Amino acid sequence: METIEIFKDLAIIIVAAKCFGLLAGKLHAPQVVGEIIAGLIIGPSVLGLVAQNDFLTRMAEIGVVLLMFLAGLETDIRDLLKTGPIAFLVACAGVFLPLVMGSVLYGCFYGWDAVGTDGFYRAVFIGTIMTATSVSITVQSLRELGHLKGKVGTTIVSAAIIDDVIGIIVLTFVIGFKNPDSQPGMVIVNTLLFFVISAVLGIVFYFFFKFMSNRYPHHRRTPIYGLALCFLLSYMAEKFFGIADITGAYLAGIILCSVQDSKYIARKMDVSSYMLFGPVFFASIGLKTTIDGLTPEILLFSLCFILVALVGKIIGCGLVAKLCRFSNKDSLKVGIGMMTRGEVALIVSQKGLAVGMMDPVYFTSVILLIMVSSIATPILLKILYRGETPSDTPDTKAPEVLTPESAQA
Amino acid sequence: METIEIFKDLAIIIVAAKCFGLLAGKLHAPQVVGEIIAGLIIGPSVLGLVAQNDFLTRMAEIGVVLLMFLAGLETDIRDLLKTGPIAFLVACAGVFLPLVMGSVLYGCFYGWDAVGTDGFYRAVFIGTIMTATSVSITVQSLRELGHLKGKVGTTIVSAAIIDDVIGIIVLTFVIGFKNPDSQPGMVIVNTLLFFVISAVLGIVFYFFFKFMSNRYPHHRRTPIYGLALCFLLSYMAEKFFGIADITGAYLAGIILCSVQDSKYIARKMDVSSYMLFGPVFFASIGLKTTIDGLTPEILLFSLCFILVALVGKIIGCGLVAKLCRFSNKDSLKVGIGMMTRGEVALIVSQKGLAVGMMDPVYFTSVILLIMVSSIATPILLKILYRGETPSDTPDTKAPEVLTPESAQA
Repeated sequence: METIEIFKDLAIIIVAAKCFGLLAGKLHAPQVVGEIIAGLIIGPSVLGLVAQNDFLTRMAEIGVVLLMFLAGLETDIRDLLKTGPIAFLVACAGVFLPLVMGSVLYGCFYGWDAVGTDGFYRAVFIGTIMTATSVSITVQSLRELGHLKGKVGTTIVSAAIIDDVIGIIVLTFVIGFKNPDSQPGMVIVNTLLFFVISAVLGIVFYFFFKFMSNRYPHHRRTPIYGLALCFLLSYMAEKFFGIADITGAYLAGIILCSVQDSKYIARKMDVSSYMLFGPVFFASIGLKTTIDGLTPEILLFSLCFILVALVGKIIGCGLVAKLCRFSNKDSLKVGIGMMTRGEVALIVSQKGLAVGMMDPVYFTSVILLIMVSSIATPILLKILYRGETPSDTPDTKAPEVLTPESAQA
Repeated sequence: METIEIFKDLAIIIVAAKCFGLLAGKLHAPQVVGEIIAGLIIGPSVLGLVAQNDFLTRMAEIGVVLLMFLAGLETDIRDLLKTGPIAFLVACAGVFLPLVMGSVLYGCFYGWDAVGTDGFYRAVFIGTIMTATSVSITVQSLRELGHLKGKVGTTIVSAAIIDDVIGIIVLTFVIGFKNPDSQPGMVIVNTLLFFVISAVLGIVFYFFFKFMSNRYPHHRRTPIYGLALCFLLSYMAEKFFGIADITGAYLAGIILCSVQDSKYIARKMDVSSYMLFGPVFFASIGLKTTIDGLTPEILLFSLCFILVALVGKIIGCGLVAKLCRFSNKDSLKVGIGMMTRGEVALIVSQKGLAVGMMDPVYFTSVILLIMVSSIATPILLKILYRGETPSDTPDTKAPEVLTPESAQA
């Protein structure tokens, strides 16, 4: 492939992704769904304008790493600690129930395999995909309703953030266990070692970045060194510990999320991400999605998959909220609020595809899950919040990280 | 090469580029010099930490296209028209004299070749490298002195912008003529055709973007579609007209430079550029620079090259300014102000390397030229402006495009 061809590919990808993203927005679906569909349409399955290639694969990998870095950066550790106990229980139930129910669903469809076999891990992987709530979709839904700062809102957001962490740990374990060369014991040791080393590095880098952002507030060097830390931990995680690179990227975000300039860093990352790397990542998922294999069986599976994923979160999270003395209505809000899925489910799926634990056909199920949950959640929350006065004042309503352009307008 | 390795390469490149860029800043040299030296040091010639590869080459190509798009976006067409006639003459003389003098210099060193031979084009190419004044270094120097908006300042900036355009046209012609498959007549027709088609497309897109930025001010879609236009014109230029892709990118910038959101677009491009693509581009020049071939002859050539490049601009531009009734001191200011070289000289050199019209050893001459001119210009201008009251009021002093972080601080 000639170098000049990349400009054609990139131009088509970013225009198509934006147009379909906006179209999705008009239909009250998240833009990300539109971007994936754009990839599907310009890709080999429909128009054949752009073919997946080595360069795009690498751009997409940078894209997913940037997204997870951003997710880490958006974490507010104080909020996390404040609503901690309840949110932690909600998150655990919200991870555990869908994980088990998803695995059982796969077993119902494709038979039951012994623990440790390939089929077993494929089943567990379907459950793993269901675990992570999408922080950005949850936050955006609550912000639109003006209930981001209330008790329910904070619990949902904290729990969504915690379940991201748990989801990534589950993913790391699942991928680690699957690796035929490694022993489960080694995986645990490796994982612990990685987190210990990350913690040590994290403390060192936290103080370095704290110093940097106090000494040179809003200087370009801070986000640039931040990006380097993200790349470094991504590399280390995968190269030396056999852990997903996105885990490293997410940890880099967590390390930096409480330094003074974290929002400034996030804003710079967000621009790089949404201008080019993000659309390439989401479109490349569409480019890879095969709809040739969409048999009636897969379609039926998709419907059950969606039902299980949504019900798993509602029951798991709602029940724990109820046990923690939330009212019936508020418990339902927590359950509904936690059922949105987004980028993380796709990231997990792509990882599963990369290590051979998932077939590309299931992307369709994941895309449908994201679409259904992202449309259903805001509508259902709107109904549940009907008649209540918004708890957010205009100035606390919109955390600027998610729409940095508004902050710069 | 495994995908994960790109994270190691990118982390090393951006940290090294930033550190050396800051070091260069401390020594009052432009950051770009530091970034190139960083590439030199981490590359195969010194430490061997990063090797040039296909992925980095493509990232660098995106980097240079983004830089030229930005240069186009920074153009202010009204300023250009206002100080037009004088600035145009200054620019022409500032292109013509160094072009001729540079070619003659090459001839003096390596002998005289007949018109149309390989040696002839190599000589012309050395002249071509000398033509383009660096807009950003010129603007930054004048801003630091508080004389950006005066008569001299506006003339220098306008002339620097016009000579960018002339320089790119010269480059396009030189590269076009060298192409053995094409006839000079066809090159002229192709070039004209490209500019005609670009003008037509430009008008269409100008109105499209004008509509977009009025209807959706500060919406992400505008810079995203802008970036797509940049990629599209880059692709078209090289693929269908045999014209340098950077010419297309620059024209895309010119098309968008007077829409309402042009600064917003420039800011978004600038973030993508300085976070990742810019450092990769500049460092990759260093990665490619060979200092093995630095014979005493090349060193002597470099010294003469620098002398000719600086003197050519001072005489050419200063003389025209004097003829246009500037005082002696102001004429000298114009000449000195025009002698800075920067990214464009590197871009031209890299293009020359890509089409085989220049040997990598001359990168050293170009780097030295940039370093010497960028250090000398601010110092000399400071001496010439000594005792004069700054003409810029604080709020007109700094156009925000070049340092978007200050605008967002």
